Amino acid sequence: MKDKRILIIGSVALDTIETPFGKRDSILGGSATYSSVSASFFNNGTGIVAVVGKDFPKKHIATLRKKHINLEGLKIVDGKTFRWAGNYTYDLHAPVTIFTHLNVFKDFIPEVPEGMKRAPFVFLANIDPDLQEKVLSQLTGPKFIVCDTMNFWIDKKKASLERLLKKVDMFLVNEGEARQFSGVKNLVSCGNYMLDKGAKAVIIKKGEHGVLYFSRRSRFSAPAYLLETICDPTGAGDTFAGGMIGYLSNARKINDNNIKKSLIYGSIMASFVVEDFSIGRMNRLRRKDVDMRYKDFVGITRF
Amino acid sequence: MKDKRILIIGSVALDTIETPFGKRDSILGGSATYSSVSASFFNNGTGIVAVVGKDFPKKHIATLRKKHINLEGLKIVDGKTFRWAGNYTYDLHAPVTIFTHLNVFKDFIPEVPEGMKRAPFVFLANIDPDLQEKVLSQLTGPKFIVCDTMNFWIDKKKASLERLLKKVDMFLVNEGEARQFSGVKNLVSCGNYMLDKGAKAVIIKKGEHGVLYFSRRSRFSAPAYLLETICDPTGAGDTFAGGMIGYLSNARKINDNNIKKSLIYGSIMASFVVEDFSIGRMNRLRRKDVDMRYKDFVGITRF
Repeated sequence: MKDKRILIIGSVALDTIETPFGKRDSILGGSATYSSVSASFFNNGTGIVAVVGKDFPKKHIATLRKKHINLEGLKIVDGKTFRWAGNYTYDLHAPVTIFTHLNVFKDFIPEVPEGMKRAPFVFLANIDPDLQEKVLSQLTGPKFIVCDTMNFWIDKKKASLERLLKKVDMFLVNEGEARQFSGVKNLVSCGNYMLDKGAKAVIIKKGEHGVLYFSRRSRFSAPAYLLETICDPTGAGDTFAGGMIGYLSNARKINDNNIKKSLIYGSIMASFVVEDFSIGRMNRLRRKDVDMRYKDFVGITRF
Repeated sequence: MKDKRILIIGSVALDTIETPFGKRDSILGGSATYSSVSASFFNNGTGIVAVVGKDFPKKHIATLRKKHINLEGLKIVDGKTFRWAGNYTYDLHAPVTIFTHLNVFKDFIPEVPEGMKRAPFVFLANIDPDLQEKVLSQLTGPKFIVCDTMNFWIDKKKASLERLLKKVDMFLVNEGEARQFSGVKNLVSCGNYMLDKGAKAVIIKKGEHGVLYFSRRSRFSAPAYLLETICDPTGAGDTFAGGMIGYLSNARKINDNNIKKSLIYGSIMASFVVEDFSIGRMNRLRRKDVDMRYKDFVGITRF
């Protein structure tokens, strides 16, 4: 049988979040959490590489296990789990960070467990690009690598990112990061800039405005699913990435057509996760719901 | 033969515009200009009701005539033509208005020429909603009415707009106007609010992010065409409306499917007009180019 496993490197965190819809203290968060839970709807062979402290609640481990997520690469070390607190105002755009306590995440050196080194699908969630590159050097012939980043690394480690860009199959940024990285305002120009820099494919996430995809062969633009209520946008981007790579890992072939579909599935997963805090909505979600919303999305966008 | 004529009520203006791509003095502008020129690519029976002053250059009259636009309803009166000057900064969002001289437009009372009173398709471009209503009272059984407005009227004449809303077939607003009118941030909620207020259908224009459509039966979301260079965004909304109603006037039936297609044609027309100042790009445009870009758009958005 074909190996479809997905390896995800990122954070597992405890978030304290306030939005116009409420406040939650120390809830399960982090890029590896959101993306692996999202991928788990498409793929039972998703493993994460991350670190938490001894304070990390056992119930969260149980939750991830229930989603069939391989936790062999989740280190539990002395110290406290990475904690982030943020407030979203009414417009639900970029949150105001109240605090970021890296804790055990500060010294995180990702080590891919022996059994996962051959995983064909890899999601490098947002960490130091030098660490992302170190992860790649541990792998044995990955087939498809998706790489995320953030404004902080574009600012501090642009050269590392530019090197990494060429080594991955898909470079994932949001609107602001695309503009920061490229130094231009127009998003089509941003996409072209990153392709010129050696990216094989670029995805620009525009939140409520959808997603753009640029590769050397094709361009694609999709709106977001229409949602009336967004409870908490935290994790939307990672959930998008997890759904995308999850769908792709199950596709017969990686071609433009399936990549486009994977972007829609990613958007659909993100549209669910923002309906509740943490992975609350994902815990109640059935694969059937995902497919129904995908159908609905087709109806909303097809002409 | 079926009557397919389109009646457009709006402004014909002389604009002075500065964008990062250059500066132009007293160029042809106005909502009736942009929308009728756009509609003319789909329909040779488009007539405008507007007013200009004696200073209005004859060459512009000739340009509009060449587009087969019926100018019976264009009054040329003593005084100066409506003039607007605006500057766009690098991000090409809302321009800074340098001046607005209403001139002859101040006392504009639209009078529909006898021959156009039976036109089945009507575009009420942005003017005082009380005047828009007066236009409607002059018509004999219009089949499809599209109505535009602006923040100024939402602020000053909300009650008039709410009355008008119920009498038209399609209410056209941009993102900011939708939020202002509805008092809510989420655009899906805005659409629902306007439907609740009695609108049959609502279009929310999101500029570079595309367009949303809400009717009692269906919802539709489309991204914008991908453009790398936007020279001057002036008239994009009116060009969108003109292309939309132009396409619809030629469609066999007005149903959701054709309305969706008309929104795409409207977007495509808008994507052309912003490539140059005034109607410069439209003067060089062939219907063939429109259909080619439509095809390209399908390729960019279909999955």
